[in-house]
Order: sequence, then C-alpha cells, then structure tokens
Amino acid sequence: MCKMRTLEWNTKSEKLMLIDQRLLPGNLSILEIAGVQEVVEAIQSMAVRGAPAIGVTAAFGLALAGMRSTATTRKAFMADIEGAARELIQTRPTAKNLSWGIERILRKLNGMETSEIDDMRIAVLSEAQHIAEEDITINKRMAEIGADLIDDGDTIIHHCNTGALAAVDWGTALGVIRMAHEQGKRIHVLVDETRPRLQGARLTAWELEQYQIPYDLICDNAAGYFLKKGIVNKVFFGGDRVAENGDVANKVGTYMLALAAHANEVPVYCVVPTSTIDINIKDGSFIPIEERAQEEVLNLQIAGEPVHPKGARARNPAFDVTPHALLSAIVTEVGIVFPPFTEGLRKVVSQ
Amino acid sequence: MCKMRTLEWNTKSEKLMLIDQRLLPGNLSILEIAGVQEVVEAIQSMAVRGAPAIGVTAAFGLALAGMRSTATTRKAFMADIEGAARELIQTRPTAKNLSWGIERILRKLNGMETSEIDDMRIAVLSEAQHIAEEDITINKRMAEIGADLIDDGDTIIHHCNTGALAAVDWGTALGVIRMAHEQGKRIHVLVDETRPRLQGARLTAWELEQYQIPYDLICDNAAGYFLKKGIVNKVFFGGDRVAENGDVANKVGTYMLALAAHANEVPVYCVVPTSTIDINIKDGSFIPIEERAQEEVLNLQIAGEPVHPKGARARNPAFDVTPHALLSAIVTEVGIVFPPFTEGLRKVVSQ
Repeated sequence: MCKMRTLEWNTKSEKLMLIDQRLLPGNLSILEIAGVQEVVEAIQSMAVRGAPAIGVTAAFGLALAGMRSTATTRKAFMADIEGAARELIQTRPTAKNLSWGIERILRKLNGMETSEIDDMRIAVLSEAQHIAEEDITINKRMAEIGADLIDDGDTIIHHCNTGALAAVDWGTALGVIRMAHEQGKRIHVLVDETRPRLQGARLTAWELEQYQIPYDLICDNAAGYFLKKGIVNKVFFGGDRVAENGDVANKVGTYMLALAAHANEVPVYCVVPTSTIDINIKDGSFIPIEERAQEEVLNLQIAGEPVHPKGARARNPAFDVTPHALLSAIVTEVGIVFPPFTEGLRKVVSQ
Repeated sequence: MCKMRTLEWNTKSEKLMLIDQRLLPGNLSILEIAGVQEVVEAIQSMAVRGAPAIGVTAAFGLALAGMRSTATTRKAFMADIEGAARELIQTRPTAKNLSWGIERILRKLNGMETSEIDDMRIAVLSEAQHIAEEDITINKRMAEIGADLIDDGDTIIHHCNTGALAAVDWGTALGVIRMAHEQGKRIHVLVDETRPRLQGARLTAWELEQYQIPYDLICDNAAGYFLKKGIVNKVFFGGDRVAENGDVANKVGTYMLALAAHANEVPVYCVVPTSTIDINIKDGSFIPIEERAQEEVLNLQIAGEPVHPKGARARNPAFDVTPHALLSAIVTEVGIVFPPFTEGLRKVVSQ
C-alpha cells in the first residue's frame, strides 16, 4: 500500500488528511481538511467512500466541529456538535457506519460530566482517533477470520472496492483476500469494474497491483458468464448496511452478482464489521437507498468523446439490497455468521 | 430514423454503404465498401453489428467478392466465393445469422446451372439485395407480433441495441418497442448502457431520441434494483443464436438481467428472426462464445483520464447464454413461441 493510510489525523496541523479517491488511480493526492463543511463535501463527492471509512471520517468531522466551536458553555458546545452531526448524517443515507461513528462520539460526550470545553474537544478527538485505530484492528481480525474461507487456487469475483481504501486500512472483503494471499494461498481475482463510479477498475485493481495479487478486470455484465462457466470458486463483497435478517445493502450490482452466483452454486460471502449491522432494521426493505446524480452515469468517455446522445437522461441508484437467502455467510470481526442469520447477527452485535 | 438504412447497396457506385456505428452517437458517418476485405474488417471492428445486420452484410460481402472476381470458369468463380465465405464466417463466431446469410448465397449459386460468370455475379448481388429487403419485412412483422406483448403504461428494461441499427431497419426487440409506441401505447424504457461497448448508451438511446420514446439510461448493474423495486413490467432483448431448446446466446449481461427478472417474476422476452435459430444445436453449451480484445474494457475515460491502473489486464467475453428456463417467450416473424420451446422452435423454423 502507499505510505499513508486512507485517512489520518495530522496532530501537528490539526487537520484531517484524506486520500482523494476521485483522482485514483492516476494521482495519489491528499486532501487536508480543516472544517466540518469540507468533511461533508468530501463524503458527498466520494473523495472518501466505503462504509468503514466514512464512519471514521464522520467521527473526525465532529472532532473538527469541536475544534472550530467558539462555544463557552457545555450546552452551546453540544449544540455545535449536534448541528454538525445532523449535517454529516445527511451526506449519505445508506451506510450504517456513518451514524454509528457519529453516535459513538455523541455517547462519549453525553457520558462526560465536565463543563470544560477544552476537555470535551479533546474527548471528541481522542474518541475519533480511537475509532480509527480500532477500525484497523477490527479489519485485520476480520481478514484473519475470513481468510479461512479461501482455499489455495481459488478464483474469486469481487465487487466494488472493499480494500484499505474503503477503511482506515485493510478493509473488509478485499482485506480477507489480501490476508489469504499473505498466507501464501494462490488466488486469482476477477474484479468487477463496478459501474457507475468504477471503484473496481479505479481502486481495487490499483490495490491488487500493489499487493501483487493476480487479477483480471471484467465488466460487471461478464460475471454471469464466468460463474456459469464453472471457473469461479467464491464471490466476495462488503456491505453498507446489514439488516437483522441478513439482507445486505451494498454497492449497486451486488444483487445481480449474488443471484448469478447462487444460481450456479458458488458461495457468496459478505464481509462487514459489526458496526455495519443495523439490528433495528428488520429486513432490507427498510434500508434507505441513495440515488445519486445522473452525471455519474453520463460522464463516460471513449477517445475523448461522450458515449451517449445529447440530452440523454439517466437513473443512478448507488446501492441495492441482496436478500439474505443468497448469502452463504456474513464475516465479522467476532466470527462468521451462517444462515439462518437473525440469531447469529444479534449475537455478534451484542458481543 | 436517419434517412439512410443501416446498410444499403449503392447501385450507381456498386459499393456497400454502411453507417459506421463506432462513431455514433457523435457522428453519423457512412463507410463505402468496395471489397470483401473491408467487409471483414467492418464486421470484426463492429462498424456494423447486430445479428441480422451482420447476416445481410456478409451476403453483400459475397456480392462484392463476386464482382471483384477475375475468374473465367464457374469452378474458379465458386472457389473465389467460397474463399470469401470462409473469411467472412470467421469474423464473429456467435451469431447464427452470419453463416445463415452466407449459406443462402452459396445455396443459390449451387442451384444455378449456368456457367456464365456475369449471370452468377448478378445472382449473388440480387440474392443479397433480396435478403436485405426480406430483413425489413421480417423485422416489421416481428414488431407487429411482439407489440401485442406490450401494454399501455409499461416500463421495459432493454439490453444492448436491437433496433434499426442492428438490422437493415426496424430491428428485433427495439422494433417491438417502437411498434408498440407507434400504436399509441405509452412506454418508458430503462436502457441498459451495456458494457463494454455501450451499445445501449450509444445506439439505443440515440434511436429512442429519434422515435421520441421516453427513456432513462441505467448502468447494467442497476437493472436488479429496478426489477426488485417492482417498477419494471417487462424485459426485452434480441439474440445472436438460439439453440433448439430455447437457450439464447446474446450480448454479455443478458444472463444476469434475465436471472434478476425471473427472480422478481418479470416476464422476459427474446425477439429474433428465425434465421437466428440454430435447430442443429441442442442447447446453449454448444454455442461458441466470442472473447474480444481487452482494450474494449480498458478504453474507458472520465474527464480524459483512464479509469484503471497502468498494466491492468481484462477479460472480455462478448456474449453469454441465457438458459431457456428464464424466458417467458421467444418472438419470431412467424409467431410467438412459448415454453416448452423445442417443439415450437422446430415448427417456426420449418415454416
């Protein structure tokens, strides 16, 4: 990986440093973020993306809000933090981790009895830093647990980006693949390019180059062909929100991929930290699905030319829901949950 | 539609005129083709594509081969034609129509008793012209038959391009949609962009703009989302080769689309002329699937920048096979075939 983490707190400048993922793989450029409004923009524009990463980013967003707050009373400080929390939580509706990170900070503050604003500022920042460190430990643990599911010689289809770039480090599904590779298992990855934002082509292929894991890029359309051909052993992806029954909201296209894997009896694994599990949501139908700007579909070019007629319109749902019946298992940092999922998910969340 | 057909014989210049579909929607440019080698290149590079269109193009390829032949004996002339036929048939392995068009010309010549080379030349050209005229009649008939399957108010997902550009005129699945629209039915089309060559974004959207049929472009990945949401009434696509049991080879991604439609109880219709049905092939596993150059996957740009890391490799199957069990019906110019397909397909082919 590159020397920097996906996101990092710079203690000296008191700024949040983020890899600008919109510019990869062409440019490795760092955003230096000093205020909550810039955090909101970075999440909305997907300069930072991936459920774990945006959870941690939002926590640092609150740290920045605390730092910039001119409040002199506890009440005013809390009002500033809560205002920032509301803004941050509205940036992207689907991933559970966003509200999870924010709620953790708010719980921390609410549990403090002090009225010293500086103490509260420090508490928010140190909790955000704690969440970031924890993210790495959790992801690495998930990678170790999940790597048992991968056999030497496996060909794996992977959707979207779920690697180090989707978290602080390691990531979810791609972390599992990376760990299996580091254990010496020979793996070949078929990388879904993942339209519209092409996180597979842009980010996952870039990470795999660095880990020196062999891969071929494929159009999302081609996954069915390879699954039916019988050359794929496993399908891996992450998740943005998992409902109590195991339904998974994840990057658009996951549902069709899981259907094709299931139809061909290829195991389907979802890898998520427990912070992605929303035990209060009964099933996937209650998960809000973000529809993003049509420009994300319409901005393609080949040889410098647009590939659609002038005046074309587009619809752009960013996620879809994969029903739990299509999943073979859900990998978390406290263990692998097998179907039926409800009881197992309740258990891992309560641990 | 534009004033020109997708392909047309120019009697004055004795050349084949083809819309160069690689340049659409930006440029409407005509290729003038004088020899069989240029026909081979036009088919291979997909300047002309679509099963019916390449069948007719290959027939005109033989007409050009006849015209350029310097043979003075029937035997030598036939050798020239058969050599050209071999070259043409190798351009693209999946679509049945290619060999169908060529075999029809060869049958015509073999049935002639003359040794007059000029008569044979004229016979090849007039048979090619006959095939082209017939293509329009057949497609229009298919459109009328298929339009009965569409109801006022339908939202339809359509894959790839199967319109006028995929044939001499009208086309297959998109012809059906166009006919239903001309009958006054209100239709909304969700147009799969159809990676990697984006025939949906480039060609189908362009045609729909001209027919003034409302549409939204979607990423292929998003079809499952809309199908599961319950807002799609039908799925329509064409075919490149239909096996005796109803398995359909069609543009890559069709299989995943059909799976998602089937899982959500949305009817799936394949529209093909009988010339696409290969009654000698028992099931889809025997259909040869073309894998094309990786550049077709890797040539994407956004804002002038490539979207994959340097050194990325890609796999690029151009078609996949949709098992007949996922199809609700196959529409042909002699009627609609419902499951079980084998008997019905045998019947329409023998008519």
